[in-house]
Amino acid sequence: MNGAELLIGAARELGLEVCFANPGTTEMPFVNALDTADAGANRGIKGVLGMHENVCTGAADGYARMAGKPALTLLHLGPGFANGLANLHNARRARSPVVNLIGEHASWHLSADAPLHSEIERLTGWAGSWTRRSARAADLGRDLADALGAAISGRGQVVSLIVPHDLQLEPVTTPTPWALHVRGLPAVDAGRVEAAARCLEAARRPAMLLGGQALYGAGLEAAGRLAERTGAVLLGEVSYARMAAGRGLPRVQRLPYFPEMAADLLADFDAVIVAGTKLPVSFFGYHDKPARYLEGRGDIVHLADGEEDAPAALEALLGELPKGSAAAGRDVAAPADPGGEALDPTVIGAVLAAEQPEDAIVVVTAVSSAAPYAQFALEALPHTQLALTGGAIGEGLAMALGAAVAAPDQRVIAFEADGSGAYIMQALWSQARIGAKVTTVICANRRYRILEMEQERAGIEAGSIARDLTSLDRPELDWVGLARAMGVPGEAVLDRSALTLALRRGLAEPGPYLIEARF
Amino acid sequence: MNGAELLIGAARELGLEVCFANPGTTEMPFVNALDTADAGANRGIKGVLGMHENVCTGAADGYARMAGKPALTLLHLGPGFANGLANLHNARRARSPVVNLIGEHASWHLSADAPLHSEIERLTGWAGSWTRRSARAADLGRDLADALGAAISGRGQVVSLIVPHDLQLEPVTTPTPWALHVRGLPAVDAGRVEAAARCLEAARRPAMLLGGQALYGAGLEAAGRLAERTGAVLLGEVSYARMAAGRGLPRVQRLPYFPEMAADLLADFDAVIVAGTKLPVSFFGYHDKPARYLEGRGDIVHLADGEEDAPAALEALLGELPKGSAAAGRDVAAPADPGGEALDPTVIGAVLAAEQPEDAIVVVTAVSSAAPYAQFALEALPHTQLALTGGAIGEGLAMALGAAVAAPDQRVIAFEADGSGAYIMQALWSQARIGAKVTTVICANRRYRILEMEQERAGIEAGSIARDLTSLDRPELDWVGLARAMGVPGEAVLDRSALTLALRRGLAEPGPYLIEARF
Repeated sequence: MNGAELLIGAARELGLEVCFANPGTTEMPFVNALDTADAGANRGIKGVLGMHENVCTGAADGYARMAGKPALTLLHLGPGFANGLANLHNARRARSPVVNLIGEHASWHLSADAPLHSEIERLTGWAGSWTRRSARAADLGRDLADALGAAISGRGQVVSLIVPHDLQLEPVTTPTPWALHVRGLPAVDAGRVEAAARCLEAARRPAMLLGGQALYGAGLEAAGRLAERTGAVLLGEVSYARMAAGRGLPRVQRLPYFPEMAADLLADFDAVIVAGTKLPVSFFGYHDKPARYLEGRGDIVHLADGEEDAPAALEALLGELPKGSAAAGRDVAAPADPGGEALDPTVIGAVLAAEQPEDAIVVVTAVSSAAPYAQFALEALPHTQLALTGGAIGEGLAMALGAAVAAPDQRVIAFEADGSGAYIMQALWSQARIGAKVTTVICANRRYRILEMEQERAGIEAGSIARDLTSLDRPELDWVGLARAMGVPGEAVLDRSALTLALRRGLAEPGPYLIEARF
Repeated sequence: MNGAELLIGAARELGLEVCFANPGTTEMPFVNALDTADAGANRGIKGVLGMHENVCTGAADGYARMAGKPALTLLHLGPGFANGLANLHNARRARSPVVNLIGEHASWHLSADAPLHSEIERLTGWAGSWTRRSARAADLGRDLADALGAAISGRGQVVSLIVPHDLQLEPVTTPTPWALHVRGLPAVDAGRVEAAARCLEAARRPAMLLGGQALYGAGLEAAGRLAERTGAVLLGEVSYARMAAGRGLPRVQRLPYFPEMAADLLADFDAVIVAGTKLPVSFFGYHDKPARYLEGRGDIVHLADGEEDAPAALEALLGELPKGSAAAGRDVAAPADPGGEALDPTVIGAVLAAEQPEDAIVVVTAVSSAAPYAQFALEALPHTQLALTGGAIGEGLAMALGAAVAAPDQRVIAFEADGSGAYIMQALWSQARIGAKVTTVICANRRYRILEMEQERAGIEAGSIARDLTSLDRPELDWVGLARAMGVPGEAVLDRSALTLALRRGLAEPGPYLIEARF
């Protein structure tokens, strides 16, 4: 047994099942160890190849959100890891547990400063707070266990283990003993529960702002019962990691992206309980717009932040409120489908919400085109939504890949745009390679529409350079051609009827399918 | 005038001409300033949009190598900058001057820790040694001048200027005065020149190992005259930034990539003068292979490293040697074209070398397929080659874009492979957008061949997972389809005759063209 086999064996014993990989020379012992570990037992670690490292890290994020446990990534030295950073930023914001395995030059070769050498720890420190550089081959199982323990401690985090090539190859006879050490969540703060109960009781127009684990599962269920009992409106954070939505589920209205709209909405309530996330701030700071919407208000209670056990805190809050006091809810209304054949974000959103199957996982990463969908999805069949948590554009197609690996029996829908999808088009190839059940809808408006909106809001008439640097119309990206070239069938649609039929075709495919909705 | 206009105006006055951009909300004042600066004078800064930040940074590297001066990049916060890191790693190794302009949240919004917030300085510190975070709007012209001065000091470096959004927007009435401070190269070390002369005179089989600025222009010319006078064989570093080659130019044999071959070659000489680069080390460290080829030898002289003025040192060395003592050269032989219709790296290399026009810029970033071309190129028409300096795969198509912007009258050829090209396919769209005169040849062997070679060399028979993680055959990437979908015409070829005709067609195109050479 060499060091790499020790580490991969430990990973398998600890229940890791998937490795999203883009290996290089310094990672080949790990690649070979995946085969060795696979040969003996019947439950090896599945390797999924990405043609770009951001595919691997985005997939690991999507996998973690759905599986509730980490995937491994396998990345090549500093530059390979650098390519995967942006989606690790999103994973960090999502509190997704991810274990990055990074190969490094042989220990004795570091000082040679060979071309690919760099200070990897600067990068791992940016992407997460736990990094270790392995020092002995015999420690590699222990190092992996420690990395995994750190990754799943608390709400979850991104961790990185740097393993020099010589340690991977070195024979190991006596492995260092290892154990999984996991730090749990802090106990629910009774004082804040009590304060939240009194705040809700005193309010006439209460709201609860939910984030993190309060947006699905037991957290959302408790929030729904609290809404029924108090009449509180449920609001959701802008950049959510995972949300359950659809008919029969508590209705959550996502906070608007633009700050004055968010601030206006929140000003409407005389009590706001925040659970599962921090107090809301604007996505960007504008000198003439609000930025910290709840700051200075006396009628808010921060029940649980993103690092705390929001579902338990919401359960405790339920217990603190008098039973049976059902309140008239002010439910969030789903809009009516406006009809019409011409495609725009509203029609696309309405059609998608109507066609998506039960239990779908909808990755919502279109930037300017996604808002209407969120409203129509309130009336869709029950499903899960995953969104962009860190604002690093270019994750959707990779996140969908990872979600499909985590939940092979569910249909994954990537609701993406042309501008944001273009950063990560390589993910389509991995989807085709493993036959991932991902149906992609590209909202193709041929521009970075969000930047145009920012210009319009600032009252600036764009000059020719500004128009050039925000448009994607010259040449027009042919998404169907891109998909086909990477093994994913698809079609372009120009109106509602075609979109409806295309969705039905795509959702019936056994593997990936791409629909370019042009408008 | 606002801060952004002050900075862009300074950039223009300082002679910067191009900005490779992928902006976001926090960079829009700079985008607008490009228009403002353009309106007044007739020599604005050209904006080139990339759909991925690594396109922008790779293009900036290619631009700097050909233009000999920096381009600006314009990148969005930490995650956008992160996406461009890998090619900045290559730029750093190439000693390419690059000035990164990174937008940042409004100063007063930083502590809100909004979704896109991160510690940008960790990343800029990884990519280069000079970073500044602007503190006052009035300083922005000065800050840009200081950044440029740092970028072009010495041999050149990657620098980063982080500018908060509020400073970009703030009106400026009295700009802080600025001036360009440039640190020159250290004076030539007379002792080492003298030692090199004595070493060459005592040698029977001398060689000169050239890198950096010794591989083109005055440096290569001086090296060629030294070779004539001393009989020294000219060797080139593996990972060169720029090299002039072809008929009539001094012939340089590139050091082999694999260490035992490089060590064997160097052992053949009884004197090695190293100029323009550091002492050679192996690309990776293998426990049973040499890694520092010249270490411990008494018959070597390190005339000038990569930070020093290698052309001047070579000129000084010429002056130190007795005139007229012409030696019998042991010239590097160009191989004969083996003929045959079937495509492989040898045939592709021979055909490309025969067809490329005079003054072409050939970006050689194919990994396992490029070696034969280097030999045939010795007999090609005089041209320039640009290679991968930092080993961060996925730069070729972007480097070619930047080279085409720097040298619009020259034909650029991107000699790339399918595995490495897949990291940066988005660059094709930018090539089409600006009509860049880039002819791309994709060596499509459907695998990460270099990894298979590493396995073979290590005597390892790959298991099914290892084969899966090193192959690109399922599905087959359709490069012609990818190119067309991004606006670049092209064709696939299966034999020598078709490749020859395709090259003639492509090289006659006014804009980009892609040839997929399948084998």
